[in-house]
Amino acid sequence: MSSIPESKVDVLILGAGPAGVMCANGLAKAGVNVRIIDKRPSTLAAGQADGIQPRTIEVLQSYGLADALISQAAQLHMAAFYNPAPNGGIECTGRAPDVTAPTARFPFELTLHQGAIEKVFLDSMRQEGLEVERPKIPTSLEISTDEAALSDPHAYAVKVVLKSLDVADGADDTEIVHAKYVLGSDGAHSWVRKTLGINMDGEQTEYIWGVIDMVPSPETNFPDYRNRCAIHSENGSCMIIPREGDKIRLYLQLTNADVVDPATGRVDMNRFGPDKLLEVAKKSFYPYIMTTTLEKIDWWTIYIIGQRVASKFSVNERVFIAGDACHTHSPKAGQGMNASMNDTHNLIWKLTHVLRGWADLSLLKTYEFERRKYAQDLIAFDKKFSALFSGKPKSEEYADGVTHEEFLQAFQAFGAFTSGIGIHYAQSALTSTTHQAAASNLIIGQRILPQVVLRMADRRAIDIQDVCPADTRFKVLVFTGDLRDPAQRARVEKFAAELGRKDGFFRAIGETKAESIYDVLSILKGKKEEGSHFDVPEILRVLLDDTDVTNKKGGKVYETYGVGPEGAVVVVRPDGYVGTVAPLDQVKTLDGYFAEFMRSN
Amino acid sequence: MSSIPESKVDVLILGAGPAGVMCANGLAKAGVNVRIIDKRPSTLAAGQADGIQPRTIEVLQSYGLADALISQAAQLHMAAFYNPAPNGGIECTGRAPDVTAPTARFPFELTLHQGAIEKVFLDSMRQEGLEVERPKIPTSLEISTDEAALSDPHAYAVKVVLKSLDVADGADDTEIVHAKYVLGSDGAHSWVRKTLGINMDGEQTEYIWGVIDMVPSPETNFPDYRNRCAIHSENGSCMIIPREGDKIRLYLQLTNADVVDPATGRVDMNRFGPDKLLEVAKKSFYPYIMTTTLEKIDWWTIYIIGQRVASKFSVNERVFIAGDACHTHSPKAGQGMNASMNDTHNLIWKLTHVLRGWADLSLLKTYEFERRKYAQDLIAFDKKFSALFSGKPKSEEYADGVTHEEFLQAFQAFGAFTSGIGIHYAQSALTSTTHQAAASNLIIGQRILPQVVLRMADRRAIDIQDVCPADTRFKVLVFTGDLRDPAQRARVEKFAAELGRKDGFFRAIGETKAESIYDVLSILKGKKEEGSHFDVPEILRVLLDDTDVTNKKGGKVYETYGVGPEGAVVVVRPDGYVGTVAPLDQVKTLDGYFAEFMRSN
Repeated sequence: MSSIPESKVDVLILGAGPAGVMCANGLAKAGVNVRIIDKRPSTLAAGQADGIQPRTIEVLQSYGLADALISQAAQLHMAAFYNPAPNGGIECTGRAPDVTAPTARFPFELTLHQGAIEKVFLDSMRQEGLEVERPKIPTSLEISTDEAALSDPHAYAVKVVLKSLDVADGADDTEIVHAKYVLGSDGAHSWVRKTLGINMDGEQTEYIWGVIDMVPSPETNFPDYRNRCAIHSENGSCMIIPREGDKIRLYLQLTNADVVDPATGRVDMNRFGPDKLLEVAKKSFYPYIMTTTLEKIDWWTIYIIGQRVASKFSVNERVFIAGDACHTHSPKAGQGMNASMNDTHNLIWKLTHVLRGWADLSLLKTYEFERRKYAQDLIAFDKKFSALFSGKPKSEEYADGVTHEEFLQAFQAFGAFTSGIGIHYAQSALTSTTHQAAASNLIIGQRILPQVVLRMADRRAIDIQDVCPADTRFKVLVFTGDLRDPAQRARVEKFAAELGRKDGFFRAIGETKAESIYDVLSILKGKKEEGSHFDVPEILRVLLDDTDVTNKKGGKVYETYGVGPEGAVVVVRPDGYVGTVAPLDQVKTLDGYFAEFMRSN
Repeated sequence: MSSIPESKVDVLILGAGPAGVMCANGLAKAGVNVRIIDKRPSTLAAGQADGIQPRTIEVLQSYGLADALISQAAQLHMAAFYNPAPNGGIECTGRAPDVTAPTARFPFELTLHQGAIEKVFLDSMRQEGLEVERPKIPTSLEISTDEAALSDPHAYAVKVVLKSLDVADGADDTEIVHAKYVLGSDGAHSWVRKTLGINMDGEQTEYIWGVIDMVPSPETNFPDYRNRCAIHSENGSCMIIPREGDKIRLYLQLTNADVVDPATGRVDMNRFGPDKLLEVAKKSFYPYIMTTTLEKIDWWTIYIIGQRVASKFSVNERVFIAGDACHTHSPKAGQGMNASMNDTHNLIWKLTHVLRGWADLSLLKTYEFERRKYAQDLIAFDKKFSALFSGKPKSEEYADGVTHEEFLQAFQAFGAFTSGIGIHYAQSALTSTTHQAAASNLIIGQRILPQVVLRMADRRAIDIQDVCPADTRFKVLVFTGDLRDPAQRARVEKFAAELGRKDGFFRAIGETKAESIYDVLSILKGKKEEGSHFDVPEILRVLLDDTDVTNKKGGKVYETYGVGPEGAVVVVRPDGYVGTVAPLDQVKTLDGYFAEFMRSN
C-alpha cells in the first residue's frame, strides 16, 4: 500500500488564467518558491479574454513583457459611435479617441486572444524553470487553526490535496501539498472560493449578450470595423472590438425571445447559434453590411451579465482569491482580464516581502483593502455603463432613451477608470499623504506618472517608469534639485547622511542588504551638456531632468510632479504606485512610513 | 574517376561579411535563387566592425531587422570633446549630440560586435532556408566572352569553381557553379577584385592607430566613458566608442616609434601589445584614470589607415564587388560596415528586377554609378576628418593645430554625411528632377523623409518609411489632397483613370501583376474623425495626414514634403530613395521615368 506523497511549497497557485500566470511569473522572477496548477489540459486556442488596457500595458512593461504582447496584438486607437439615422438604419454620429487618459504612456488598447496572452507569461516563467502542472485539480483545502502557525509567516499553514487528471493506470494521482500561502485564481466558478465559503455579493442583470469572434467577409462595407464601435440601433445595441490579424469581435444585445426557453424560463444555448448571431448583426448594422461565413467564425458564446464582488478576498491572509474568482461583471468595457492581472500584481510583492521576512504579516491585509475596493468601484462603473449601453437609443417612442451626447460624455468621463490609469488606492499604511505638498502634482495611491528623464551616464532618454520595474524593490526617487547651488547641495548631503543612519528605514534587515529592498535613484536638475554621474558618488544611478539630445522630449519631471527647487523624495511602491512623498529634510517621515509595515530587525 | 559536380544558381555571393549577408538576406526574402559562401568556419565572436549609423538603422528597419539589433546594441546619444587643459592633462571642452541630422528617425548610433550583427541577418535568411556554406573558397572565376550571353539577363554567364575547406578524406571538395550574377563581398583583400584585375585607387596615410575593446575597471573615473568621445591631448589623439554591455572601444593614436621596426621600417605587431596600448591610454587620459586589466580585454589590433576606392565596382554587370572589397578608409567615423551594407542594399532590388525580367539589364549599371560616387565622397570626407582628428591640438608650439571650435564645427558639418541621412544619389535614369516643384521639400535622390501618418482603417500612427519597406516594389505615393473638394476629387479620379491605361507604366509585365512591381498608396488630407478607407475604393491602402488621437504626432506630411493642396505623386524606389515626383496630371512623366529602365512587354 503506497502512502500519499507529501511536499512543501511557499506559494501554491490554483488556476492558470491571467491572474494565476501573472502571479506565478512575478513570484518566480522574484525567486519565490512557487507551484501552479490548472485543470485545463492546455491553454485556450481562441475566444475569451478582453482587451488589455493602457495601465495594464504599463504593468506588463514593468515586468519586461509589454513588447512581446504589443508585437502580437491589435491596437485600438479610435472609437466610433453609431446611432439611429433619421430614415432608418444607423449612421456615424461621431468618432473620438478610444482612450481618454492624457497621462497614459501607451494611449491605446491592445486585443489578443487569451491563450496568446497567457503564453507570454508561460514563456517568461519557463526561463525561471516554472511550468504549469496540468491537468490537475485541488480536492481539499484546510487552513491551520493553530494561532501560533497563523501568526508565523513561515509556517506551512495550508494543506491542499491535489489530484492529477492525466496519469497512467495505477500511478499515483493524488498528493498532499503543505503551503505557506495559497492563491485561488480559479475563475468565476472558483472551487477555492466555494470551499472557503466566501459569498459573492451582487446580482444578475437582465441583459443578455451574444459574442462572436470572426473575420469579416469581403462584402463587409461598414467603415469602422477596425475601430472600437458603440452602436445603438433600434434593433439592439452592438459593439465591435477589433482583434489581432483580420479578426473582429462583435458583442450583440439579445432579447429574451432570442434565447430563453419559454417552457423553463432559462437561457437555452441550444436555441441559438452563430448563424442567428449573424442575423442579429445584419439587422443592427443596416444599411451597412457586416457579415461573414460560418467557417470564418473563431468562437462564439451567449451570456447574461452578473455583477458581483466576493465578500472577502482572503481567509486569514493565508488563502487569497483573485481575478474572476472575486469579481464578475460585463466584458464590454474590457476590464475583466485587466482587473485579474492587477489583482495579483498587487499581491506578488507583498507575498515576496513577507516571505523574505522583510515585511510584517499585516502587509497582506492591504491586498483585500486595495483590490476589493477597486472591484466594488468596477461593479459600480459597470452598472452605469451597462445601463447606458444596453439602453434603448433616445427616440420619439423612448423619450428617456440614451442620446449620442450622453453616451459620448459617459464614455469619456469613464476614461480614467476604464484605461486603468486613474486607479487610486485609498489611504492606508501603504499610502501616506502627510507631506503631499513636496510633490504637489503626484497623486499618492496612483501609479507614478510616466516622464522621460535622461540617464546621466549616456544621456539616453528613458521613461521614469522603466527605472521603476516590478523587481519587488521600493524605489526611493531623490529629487536633488540643482546641485550647483551650494545650499541645495548641503541639503542633499544632509539627506544622504540621514539616509545612512543605522536606526532609519534604509538599513539592513537581517542578512539582507538595503539595496535588495530599496533602489535609490537621484534625479538632478541640470543641463545635459554638463555634469557627470560621478557628481553624486554615493548613489549609483543618476538621472537628469533635461530634454534629450533632439530637444524633443524630457525635461519636465520636476514641473510635472510639482517638485520645487528645494527637491523632494518620492517613494514608489514595488507595484509602481506612489506610496508617499516627503521633503528632503523629512527622512523621519519616511522612517515612520516604512515602520508601519516593514520589520526592523 | 569522379567528375566534378556542376550546378546553376541565379546569384552566387562570395563572402559573408556585412555586405554579403545583407545581400543574401535581401535576395532570399525577395525569392531569388541565391547561394552564399565564406572562408571563415564561423562568425566572429568579438572585435571588428563599426557602429551602425542612423540611416543604416532605417534601412534595417525596412527589412524588419531594426528591433533585433536595437535590443542588443548600445546607443550613442551624446558626444564629448576633450582638449589639453591649461595646467596639463585634458579637460572637457564641450558636449554635443552625437548625431547631427535633424530628420533622422533614429537619432542615435548603435554599436554591437560584428558577429552579433551578422547573426541578425543569418537568422533572418534561415527563415527562407538559406545558410552560409562555410568554410568554402572560390578558386577560379570566368566571365563569358560571348556577347549574346552577356546581353541575355538570364544567361549563366559566370563560371566559378568552389572548394570546400572542410570535407572528409576522399570526398569531393570542388564544384563548378554556373551563375547568372556573382557578388564579391570578400573584404579588403578581396580575391574577386584581384581576380578581375580591378585596381584600388588611393594611398596609405601616415596615421597609425591602435584599437582596444575592453570593460573599464572600477578605478576608471573618466566621466564620459558611456559617450562617444573625441580626445585631443598633447600625448596623441584618442576616441571612445561605447559598446554593448559594459564594453567600450578605445581608438588610440600611435607614433612610428611605438610600432615601426627601425631595422625594416615596417609596422611590427610583435613590438606592441594590449599592455602598451593601456600605457598610451594612461598618458592620453591624464589626469583621469581610464584603465582595465588584461583579462577584461576582448580584442585589440593596430592599423595604418588606407584610403582607397576600387576603379570599377563591376565587370560587365555580371560580377559585382561591394563593401571593403571596393573601399577602405579609417574606421573612426564609424562608416565601414554602413557603407558595405548600403552597397548591397542598393544592389538587391536591381538584381531582383532584372532577374524577374521587369527591368532592363542596364539598370545594373546604376549600382557602380551610385555607390562608387558615394565611396569617393566617403574617402574625401575621411581625409578631412582623419587629418583633423589625428592632427595636434592647437598650442603655442603648434600654432596651426586644431582648436576645439574647429573640430566641433567639422564634427557637426559632417553630421549629414556620417549619419548616412544626407546620402544623395546624383541625377540618373533612377532620379528624375523634372517636376521637383510638385513636392518642393523632397530631395530627389535622398531617402524618403520619415513622417508620421495615420492608417485610415484604424487611425493608427505609422511612419511613412514603414509603409515603404524593402520589398523590392516601387512605392507610388499619391497625395490626393482633400477629396471633399469636388475639383480635387475630379483631379484624383482623372489620375486614377490615367494610371489604369493599358499603355502606361502601371500595367502588367508579362505574367506579373502590376501590384507585384508597384505599391500604390494614397495619402489623404483630412480629419481623423471623418471619412473612411472606403472613400477611395480603387486603392487598397489609405493613409491620412492628420495628428494621431493624442494630437502629439503626425499631420505634417504635406507641409514637410512641400506638397500643395493640388496634390502630387511621389515615387519611392525599392531602396527607400526618392526616384521622382510629379503633379497628378503628369502620369506621362511617370511613364517616361519608368520607361528609362523598366521593360514594357
